[in-house]
Amino acid sequence: MTDKVRLAPIGLGRWARVLARGAQRGDVIELHSCFSRSADKRAAFQEEFGVPKSAATLDELLADGEVEGVIITTPNDTHRELIIAALEAGKAVYTDKPITHSLEHALEVRRAVTRTGGVFAVGHSARRLSGCRVMKEWLESGRLGDVSLAEANFSNERGLELTPETWRWYADKSPGGTFIQLGVHHADNLQYLLGPVKSVSAHARKLYTKSEVPDAVMAILEFESGALGYIGCGWASPGIYQVRLQGTKANLMYDLDFTHWDESHQADEWSSLVSQSYRDMTRASVDLPPTDMFREQLDEFASAIRGTAEIEVGVDEAIRALAVVRAALESSARNGAAVDIAPLLDDVGVAP
Amino acid sequence: MTDKVRLAPIGLGRWARVLARGAQRGDVIELHSCFSRSADKRAAFQEEFGVPKSAATLDELLADGEVEGVIITTPNDTHRELIIAALEAGKAVYTDKPITHSLEHALEVRRAVTRTGGVFAVGHSARRLSGCRVMKEWLESGRLGDVSLAEANFSNERGLELTPETWRWYADKSPGGTFIQLGVHHADNLQYLLGPVKSVSAHARKLYTKSEVPDAVMAILEFESGALGYIGCGWASPGIYQVRLQGTKANLMYDLDFTHWDESHQADEWSSLVSQSYRDMTRASVDLPPTDMFREQLDEFASAIRGTAEIEVGVDEAIRALAVVRAALESSARNGAAVDIAPLLDDVGVAP
Repeated sequence: MTDKVRLAPIGLGRWARVLARGAQRGDVIELHSCFSRSADKRAAFQEEFGVPKSAATLDELLADGEVEGVIITTPNDTHRELIIAALEAGKAVYTDKPITHSLEHALEVRRAVTRTGGVFAVGHSARRLSGCRVMKEWLESGRLGDVSLAEANFSNERGLELTPETWRWYADKSPGGTFIQLGVHHADNLQYLLGPVKSVSAHARKLYTKSEVPDAVMAILEFESGALGYIGCGWASPGIYQVRLQGTKANLMYDLDFTHWDESHQADEWSSLVSQSYRDMTRASVDLPPTDMFREQLDEFASAIRGTAEIEVGVDEAIRALAVVRAALESSARNGAAVDIAPLLDDVGVAP
Repeated sequence: MTDKVRLAPIGLGRWARVLARGAQRGDVIELHSCFSRSADKRAAFQEEFGVPKSAATLDELLADGEVEGVIITTPNDTHRELIIAALEAGKAVYTDKPITHSLEHALEVRRAVTRTGGVFAVGHSARRLSGCRVMKEWLESGRLGDVSLAEANFSNERGLELTPETWRWYADKSPGGTFIQLGVHHADNLQYLLGPVKSVSAHARKLYTKSEVPDAVMAILEFESGALGYIGCGWASPGIYQVRLQGTKANLMYDLDFTHWDESHQADEWSSLVSQSYRDMTRASVDLPPTDMFREQLDEFASAIRGTAEIEVGVDEAIRALAVVRAALESSARNGAAVDIAPLLDDVGVAP
């Protein structure tokens, strides 16, 4: 028991509970403390997850020498301050995606990671879903051949249901709307699968949401490999989560009912991966070995704190995903003209 | 028997036979003559379809007073000359899609249609497939709500199998490659469903084909309605034909095994349309009443000759589809910057 890695969530909303359940499915992590400004939330979280203590202030949490790392699930525009404070206090940091809401904030986070040498992980967990992992295996083994087109869509109804009480309503807190909240997942997935994006052409529109942010975004990505990618994100229609790869030898089509992904040990059961071979229109079901993305990502984070694992999605990978979002918004402001990724990465010190 | 409309195919390849079978499933058309430069092809076609006569030259065919209309299935870059000659000879003209391979040719065709007043139809038949018709019904009845995103893909392996012996190999005969051959179908389908396209941002790449033309094209369409559309076309991967509409009340996803569409009276059996309602991830199968796109389109053409039907896809509708292709190629040459459709239509005299 004393060998477990002692972590503390910062922000105790719905997503903190999803991650806590993931951590508790493993046997690497002890949720040792927690912090929210709300005493009620702290008490409820301690009760629900058997957390021995809580901190009434951020300073109190960060001063707790027993806490080895924090799990941040607060609004995107608060990430920078919390991440840097935790790193400076010597804590390892896991933050939910996107790393920050802006590349400017991400630059400061990156400097803090470099300066402190702290363990830092970003919750781009979707690449760990079995369908994505199996697509990657097919790519690496050559079964797909050369990929020319990759299409992804992540959409839901959220934009129609936002209210001014939620931070996602506001353009300064969630620039890009559906694209920074949903599209950033596929910006990571597709770069995990196909390598770095070179440029992005996009159009973002605010059509049916009453909020300040886009609810319809389409982006074309050009990869360094030459392949073309597409990410479509709606926030004003029923839910979709799909990825399709078109290769010279085969196609793969992944489909997920993401309403089940909170319980990530069961998410694969709500997904399908089908393949299609050259000159064959029939679709064959591909086996999906079970995964548990939230448990795996948090176990990896905790193990990295102890030096027994490496972080798969760290600051640079997360910035590459955020840079696609930023490029898409800049391209949309330029009427779709492609925006290169390299200068954006260079601005924040990431090697293109 | 004598009441049937007497038509004559020009060009007697595979597609002429597909259309001849469609015509013969109906009882409106008599295939009265035919023309190809090859005497062997003429003889074989007469034999296969019971065509009473053939013409050894185009002039001979067009001088035949019994022939009321022609069905053109020759290479795209030959359409202009054949269409204009036939119209000038007083024949009605049905041509396979695209109307021509260039907007410049389309302008000349449009002038000839106006000048002669002849009946003219273009074979954008895919909008007549049951899935597309039912999507249109859902749109018009309000069951989809407001559509923000529409995604379509048409891909096959053709680009990997082209040889220099085929006209589709060459950029001057088939500019845009997969996009003018496959994408133009969805350029018509999506405008049929959602109204006129306002602008197009696209990237076209020649990746794995040895031919001169692009085998990977992605285009983002902005509709006059404000909705965003996407067309993806690969020519170096297994076959896909899909259309998805995302509305505020429901989504519709259409999937077709197009390898069966030559026998268009059976094509609907090889397709599926599924719906998804607001806040519901389950997919429900939607009934598809049987259609027969080639028979229906040719019957309509023949009936229009006799004044008892109106042409659904005439010169202007076909030019709107071709203009999307042209705009996509211009946009790609401008690194994705959106190209407006209105000036392209204005150039050829179509009201934007």
